[in-house]
Amino acid sequence: MSEPRSLPLLGGPPPERSDAARNREALLRAATDLVDHCGVEAVTMDAVAAKAGVGKGTVYRRFESREGLMAALLNHSETAWQAAVLSGPPPLGPGAPPMERLLAFGHSRIETNLKHADLITAAGHSGARAYAAMSFAAMHVRYLLTRLGVRGDVPILATSLLAPLEIAILHQQTHIEQIPVDRIQRGWAELVRRVVAAEPSAVMAP
Amino acid sequence: MSEPRSLPLLGGPPPERSDAARNREALLRAATDLVDHCGVEAVTMDAVAAKAGVGKGTVYRRFESREGLMAALLNHSETAWQAAVLSGPPPLGPGAPPMERLLAFGHSRIETNLKHADLITAAGHSGARAYAAMSFAAMHVRYLLTRLGVRGDVPILATSLLAPLEIAILHQQTHIEQIPVDRIQRGWAELVRRVVAAEPSAVMAP
Repeated sequence: MSEPRSLPLLGGPPPERSDAARNREALLRAATDLVDHCGVEAVTMDAVAAKAGVGKGTVYRRFESREGLMAALLNHSETAWQAAVLSGPPPLGPGAPPMERLLAFGHSRIETNLKHADLITAAGHSGARAYAAMSFAAMHVRYLLTRLGVRGDVPILATSLLAPLEIAILHQQTHIEQIPVDRIQRGWAELVRRVVAAEPSAVMAP
Repeated sequence: MSEPRSLPLLGGPPPERSDAARNREALLRAATDLVDHCGVEAVTMDAVAAKAGVGKGTVYRRFESREGLMAALLNHSETAWQAAVLSGPPPLGPGAPPMERLLAFGHSRIETNLKHADLITAAGHSGARAYAAMSFAAMHVRYLLTRLGVRGDVPILATSLLAPLEIAILHQQTHIEQIPVDRIQRGWAELVRRVVAAEPSAVMAP
């Protein structure tokens, strides 16, 4: 019998004994605390071990390297965010009208991606994660656009709405152009309202 | 007196003597031919030297490394594309109505970026170039949106229209999702028509 997994992120960890799982959870909680209070740069294997009250060897056995720890943190946070979209309270989760859900999705995704930017850098090879996360977001946005009655090429429109939420774009807006995050969030909401409101009278090839 | 530069790409090369400039031009032409006919992978310093009928040392003196050559090719091609936007024939260049120019811009940018994707990888550290190219495109799209009478946050809308043209997005669509280029181009045109056609009745914070 195969082990069912709720979310296809990073291929999922192998099954763990429950004490090992608790151990892992405690280490991730300690690392998350450190990230939240001191920033990604401050999170070393030593610091996580000290914070969790275990030996450094335990941290290395669990995550192999600092990059591995960062990838696990990213996975942990992304999974929590996806769970909030799938089954958390509205308007991000189910229960709100589709337009409210879509606006809540963008608002929350901008925050999450900015939070994840440093983790992704620290995790190194992030290609697989980026694509898994993008597939989830694409499916969700396609679903909401269809619920909103949008005609036309919904998969391409969904990609177009997701592209401005990519970390590279957000990073340039916040760090280089110094645009406040709430202005970026309002701008995305404006984009969505325009895309959903308009049904082009004719779609001609350029 | 400072040396005026027409386009702020890669900081520009230092002033060259005219025979050196001709020499450089011939090498870039040879390299461009090789890229067009054999692909980026096939372009070695040896191949470029043989094609241009010069010694390998000359190619190294001009470009230092294969990465340097690739960066020069990229700069060369990007400059030609920017010149076509600024002063080439309509509808990409001036003279066409702003909507036609905007659609021609996207259509052409998708082609150019896909052509540049391999060069950017081969050129290594591409951050500076990517940002310079993005500034040019952002200015151009803002200008056209303003000409089209679009109200609202034009800089953010311009970034939103440019984001789906980023190489990472196009690469995923063409290489992973196997979407044909002309469908991506039609999808961008649809996005633009929706954004321009709709004036949101009220821009509320989400």
